[in-house]
Amino acid sequence: MTLARLIFAIGVFWTVAFNVSADAADNATIEQVRDYRLAHEKEILQELIEYLAIPNHAFRAEDIQANLEFLLSAFERRGISARILETPGAPPTLYAETKSENAVMTLTVYTHLDGQPADEADWSTPPFEPALKRPPFGDDDLIEFDSSKLRANPNWRLFARSASDDKSPLIAMLAALDALRTIGESPNINLKFFVETDEEQGSPNLRRILEHHKGLFADDDFWLFADGPMHESGVQQIVFGVRGVTGAELTVYGARQPLHSGHYGNFSPNPASRLAHLLASTRDENGTILIEGIDALEAPINEESLERLRGRLKDLPSPLANLGLAAAEKPGAPREIAVLNTALNIKGLSAGAVGARARNAIPDTASASIGFRLAPGVPPAKALDLLERHIRDQGYEIVREAPSADMRLQHDKIIRVTRMDGGYPSAYTDLSDPQAVNMIRIVESVRPDFITIPIAGGSLPLFYFKDVIGAPFAIVPIANADNNQHAPDENIRLGNFFEGIELYAHILARLGNTDSIGD
Amino acid sequence: MTLARLIFAIGVFWTVAFNVSADAADNATIEQVRDYRLAHEKEILQELIEYLAIPNHAFRAEDIQANLEFLLSAFERRGISARILETPGAPPTLYAETKSENAVMTLTVYTHLDGQPADEADWSTPPFEPALKRPPFGDDDLIEFDSSKLRANPNWRLFARSASDDKSPLIAMLAALDALRTIGESPNINLKFFVETDEEQGSPNLRRILEHHKGLFADDDFWLFADGPMHESGVQQIVFGVRGVTGAELTVYGARQPLHSGHYGNFSPNPASRLAHLLASTRDENGTILIEGIDALEAPINEESLERLRGRLKDLPSPLANLGLAAAEKPGAPREIAVLNTALNIKGLSAGAVGARARNAIPDTASASIGFRLAPGVPPAKALDLLERHIRDQGYEIVREAPSADMRLQHDKIIRVTRMDGGYPSAYTDLSDPQAVNMIRIVESVRPDFITIPIAGGSLPLFYFKDVIGAPFAIVPIANADNNQHAPDENIRLGNFFEGIELYAHILARLGNTDSIGD
Repeated sequence: MTLARLIFAIGVFWTVAFNVSADAADNATIEQVRDYRLAHEKEILQELIEYLAIPNHAFRAEDIQANLEFLLSAFERRGISARILETPGAPPTLYAETKSENAVMTLTVYTHLDGQPADEADWSTPPFEPALKRPPFGDDDLIEFDSSKLRANPNWRLFARSASDDKSPLIAMLAALDALRTIGESPNINLKFFVETDEEQGSPNLRRILEHHKGLFADDDFWLFADGPMHESGVQQIVFGVRGVTGAELTVYGARQPLHSGHYGNFSPNPASRLAHLLASTRDENGTILIEGIDALEAPINEESLERLRGRLKDLPSPLANLGLAAAEKPGAPREIAVLNTALNIKGLSAGAVGARARNAIPDTASASIGFRLAPGVPPAKALDLLERHIRDQGYEIVREAPSADMRLQHDKIIRVTRMDGGYPSAYTDLSDPQAVNMIRIVESVRPDFITIPIAGGSLPLFYFKDVIGAPFAIVPIANADNNQHAPDENIRLGNFFEGIELYAHILARLGNTDSIGD
Repeated sequence: MTLARLIFAIGVFWTVAFNVSADAADNATIEQVRDYRLAHEKEILQELIEYLAIPNHAFRAEDIQANLEFLLSAFERRGISARILETPGAPPTLYAETKSENAVMTLTVYTHLDGQPADEADWSTPPFEPALKRPPFGDDDLIEFDSSKLRANPNWRLFARSASDDKSPLIAMLAALDALRTIGESPNINLKFFVETDEEQGSPNLRRILEHHKGLFADDDFWLFADGPMHESGVQQIVFGVRGVTGAELTVYGARQPLHSGHYGNFSPNPASRLAHLLASTRDENGTILIEGIDALEAPINEESLERLRGRLKDLPSPLANLGLAAAEKPGAPREIAVLNTALNIKGLSAGAVGARARNAIPDTASASIGFRLAPGVPPAKALDLLERHIRDQGYEIVREAPSADMRLQHDKIIRVTRMDGGYPSAYTDLSDPQAVNMIRIVESVRPDFITIPIAGGSLPLFYFKDVIGAPFAIVPIANADNNQHAPDENIRLGNFFEGIELYAHILARLGNTDSIGD
């Protein structure tokens, strides 16, 4: 099929096929989508490669504009209306939508088009010249894509910035739509796309953008985040929540200048020792938080889903050996269970000097950077309030600037606490939500070894979606776990990309099947 | 008196006067020595200024040689035999001696001629161009020494590297001898001088030098260390001991690389938290060491002298306010009491990063530099052994290099401990030693507000003297406490220098008074 015919066919598909009821999806769909993909591998990969070839540093407006234009064309040639959402004081966002008269629900698919900065010097091949390689992915393993007569091997990988994070998922979703049209499946859902352009900057404008355009999403039933990697074991994961995040910088004060450790050792308080005692009082060695009040805030995790998770994890390998660890912090707790609770992480310590630079001095200050990963139910500001109450309970006077000379003489124990800007709470979809139940059932039907993650350890600003839009959501990733996300030589394994097309097609086809909703 | 006449007179003094019994010293001596000093201020200051004008970085052999030659001349023109002690593999040391036929004891006076490196850019006046200044010691407060017709004011200060540490004490001692000769007092002691040349480098060659030349000091009854500052309150102190010193570098290991604090927070052990717990377990917030076995090793301090010290300290101001502190580490304990015990000081902490450089990561390692200041009775190696036993009791496997991959998988808690090279134990003279009793009585008779310090907090390698020579000793300083020792704009207050001449003359005159020894 030529590209012109494909574009025409897709146009027809979107203007006609979506008006047809589409509850016939079943597992046979997967086979047909696979056949479609096998027949169109080169066109699909070609579209992905073109997208990846456009540099996408979030801070370069011309890069972002080029990516937006590429996507506007990609949607338009499929007959999907697409446009750029402008938001005062924020970068542009791509929005696309296609409606079905028989729609029983509305789904918005989230991806982002920007990537982490990539320094070409660190890469084996230039980050914006997508390179196809066979294992073991050395300099001699390049595959000349255009001249390749071979069918793509699932173990080949495409190397480029954003190959996994987060360009492949959108191309996979578009290929899934193309495949469904070709095989005559027509999802009975309204479908929208939201493509963010500064996710890798920490989504600093996301809340403003969502609030400015919230009317567009008022009827949303579900958000599907097509982002992130597969579970580290390699199996499919569906993630229904993330931890929140906040933190603080702490500085404990000693004498007004470093003092000779001989003349003053045992007389002038050692701020590094005081900091060690303070930090030791906030959490035990197993990570259990000792700050009163935090665990009481944590929302209980659905016990049934927890039991299912525990059972599922018994069959999966532990990442401990790969991390060079003999044991987990909470003895015996798998990672997916451990991260369901709030974590208090010491990100950094600094006082005086160590090693060859160490001096025989009592430091004048000792600092720690601490971060919270917040379980559902723990608001960032409340976590910091409880931390500060705990610090005061240890006898400290809290200051916001370096203490004045007078203040030093008034208080024995002085600490400066600088609360982190820009934290946010956990966001999650309850696993008993009908849409969540439906999504789990759909994925399970084609990925029986899948794993459901109630709360992932990391933090994403999903809270803004939850807070502004309010729809339930799930993250359904397709990228290989070892994709070098955010690092040099980022890549997507072709098998993951191709199977991702099948999975997304299956989800699009089945999501509007009313039989599977609401029970 | 011209310089030529003075040299002649001193020569006569040393060949004649020391053969005369000299037990007539009394408090009247002080008055006569003061008169001598008032009459000879300019010559005395001139000699000090000439000595200070010779650069004295220990690592520049030509500087050291120039200082040695200056001192050889200074001793020789007083008729005191002086020579350079050569020691294989060590820098030269100056030795001088003068004997008395009626000597009842032998005293060696210690000083050092080298100084801390001085960067002229940091100084108000060049460090080796001695500058006399009146308060408040600004750029406009220079006194043209040669043209001054004024009698020196005790509050003037002479600015130069080593003005206090440690050139003034030797010139004061020589001036004291000149004064005693002039007034007809003749000490009935054998007197030696030992002038070290790399003290500011930490005396790395001291033991070798002492062992090589120990025969020279076999008959020593006492060593007087003419070094260091007055008590911080400004009163005269006599110091009979110092703490020892040792230390270690500690590194606690986490996963083999920094990990995302979201994905792994609560799962992968946080080495910074483990280090905080470990450090908190070694000492409480008041500095009390919790490592089992260390306090049992500490030699008890003479209870009577401790009571006297406590009583004396009641009348002296606390340094807390000057240090910007509301309270001492051991609540209520004065510095001089607190430093009688072993101190465990955290000199530095390092893990990940703090402040703007902090990342949302679990650090892969966390390090601390710790130092011990050792009370009498605690050998450095034993302190480190007990520390390591304590660390093992906390469940750690101790390694000496970064752990291998295999070792990481075998042990949950791994720490690298690097023991400090070059530590040494405390050295002290028991306060019931007859020579110590005598020295206290002599100083007391002219400095009734003096303070006796059984063990100073700092560490000096006096252990080598104690171990190789074995004589009792005392440090009797004369420099003002605010002399900027080791720092830019080092200085000696003239009043301290002049009164130091009187004190040293009194000690030399009275030390051989047999009435005051042995009771």
